[in-house]
Amino acid sequence: MKQLRDIGEDALIERLVRLVPHAEADAGGPGDDCAVIDPGPGSPMLRLLKTDALVESIHFTREAPARAVGWKAIARVVSDFAAMGGEPEHFLVTIALPKSTEVSWIEDFYRGMGDCMALFGATLAGGETSSAPENAPAFISIAATGRVERGHLVLRSTAKPGHDLLVTGKLGGSLSGKHLDFTPRIAEAAWLVRHFKPSAMMDLSDGLGKDLPRLASASGCGFVIDETALPLSENATARQAIGDGEDFELLFSLPPDQTTGLLETWPEIFPDLPLTVIGKTTPPGEGMELSGGWDHFKQD
Amino acid sequence: MKQLRDIGEDALIERLVRLVPHAEADAGGPGDDCAVIDPGPGSPMLRLLKTDALVESIHFTREAPARAVGWKAIARVVSDFAAMGGEPEHFLVTIALPKSTEVSWIEDFYRGMGDCMALFGATLAGGETSSAPENAPAFISIAATGRVERGHLVLRSTAKPGHDLLVTGKLGGSLSGKHLDFTPRIAEAAWLVRHFKPSAMMDLSDGLGKDLPRLASASGCGFVIDETALPLSENATARQAIGDGEDFELLFSLPPDQTTGLLETWPEIFPDLPLTVIGKTTPPGEGMELSGGWDHFKQD
Repeated sequence: MKQLRDIGEDALIERLVRLVPHAEADAGGPGDDCAVIDPGPGSPMLRLLKTDALVESIHFTREAPARAVGWKAIARVVSDFAAMGGEPEHFLVTIALPKSTEVSWIEDFYRGMGDCMALFGATLAGGETSSAPENAPAFISIAATGRVERGHLVLRSTAKPGHDLLVTGKLGGSLSGKHLDFTPRIAEAAWLVRHFKPSAMMDLSDGLGKDLPRLASASGCGFVIDETALPLSENATARQAIGDGEDFELLFSLPPDQTTGLLETWPEIFPDLPLTVIGKTTPPGEGMELSGGWDHFKQD
Repeated sequence: MKQLRDIGEDALIERLVRLVPHAEADAGGPGDDCAVIDPGPGSPMLRLLKTDALVESIHFTREAPARAVGWKAIARVVSDFAAMGGEPEHFLVTIALPKSTEVSWIEDFYRGMGDCMALFGATLAGGETSSAPENAPAFISIAATGRVERGHLVLRSTAKPGHDLLVTGKLGGSLSGKHLDFTPRIAEAAWLVRHFKPSAMMDLSDGLGKDLPRLASASGCGFVIDETALPLSENATARQAIGDGEDFELLFSLPPDQTTGLLETWPEIFPDLPLTVIGKTTPPGEGMELSGGWDHFKQD
């Protein structure tokens, strides 16, 4: 019998989405950072939907401060809205916890979620609580709705060959603490989609080595990167920058005639956040391959 | 240290929702079957949001047919949209599974979800997959958006004292199979809100003994029921009808001047589904108490 570890996360998703009905009219389907719902041509805003999960011992440990874990739970999802050029609105929170869970732990977790919702102008709309068997890991699922102006939507599937590839911030070393204490790039993405026009964008959640091939594949492109150009977190190696995951920085492609202008303007607007050209998209079948990055089912 | 089992599900939710920001303008807040989002006075439709969770060994066992579990995962949520007088639109599915999970199990689960989405005209918009530690229970979280016409929305918090209390179908005995094979009362609720005006409504998911006090408390009412009038599933006792849970029938209150008319018309429209007056709402502080029903954290 085939098990999940035999096929990996991306192949699993591809098999599963074929088994259920989809709306043909959706502006973006399963596979992007958020699902995009078009309420109709009369609406200047598109609706965004996102769901995400945190599993104890996979995404966090009980030793981590609960308030920081709560922040991360919301911030991960906010980062996905940023990656589409949009913003979050309403959150739904589902938790399954053993009955022996301390009330103070879950209260601190909610405080952390509240901190992040408040910072980004989002609210809690509802949720569900369930018990889990004793000794089961805590499971937290976050669903959210958001919105993006029709003209500002950026998908991951619309890069063209020959576009520059850029990343915000520094990559690698997330486990040394950054993964619990990062700021989703909402402001940066909002500015970017208003002043330049990325041809494709996503957030780096599973690591450049996993996420860049996804952007390229979704766009029908290849890619090359210059590993010596990668912006490295303190003490991180290029290998870690490619493989660690949980950077929550923006990865985007840009028509090359816009790159010089963006690199000149960016430091005036965001002086504390590096913006780095790391490579280029190529025609399909050309370019290089990358390995590394996080696969939920194949990882040991 | 206080644990979840010490305070119970309703008290926990009450504590948690105070710790995060809410939209004051929401037409219905945490606590109803769905959250209600009002897009603005120009919109004839209100948006509904719902999230729900299935935990292995709490809500289903691995011995249950995966396709039936998938059906139930979606049908539980569809039932919540029915309870507001609305209908589902887009689903997001989050699953966390050990890597040793058989691919065929999760494929059958998705087929079951697809069966139910297709029947109710809903679609899958996206989702998230994560690994879980080996031996952890499978965890499935379903989030969904839906809609309801502004004039057809029914909350659980708007019953008035002296209204009749009615339930659809038969209650009790869900574990003998009904809990995996029920039809959400979308058609019945849609007809009801168009032809009569329930003053409050919810679906019976945790059992009458848990859910009726919730409706009454949210409405600021008491209640009395006639236990001898309860419509019982085959081989079920009144005690089971109150305490088993997972009936997924509609419970609603109705101004008494409408009850005779409804009871006359109903069998013509829904000849196969009983509709039963089980009691009345009362002024607060009067009426009776009910015990039984499912509490996720206090249950043994």
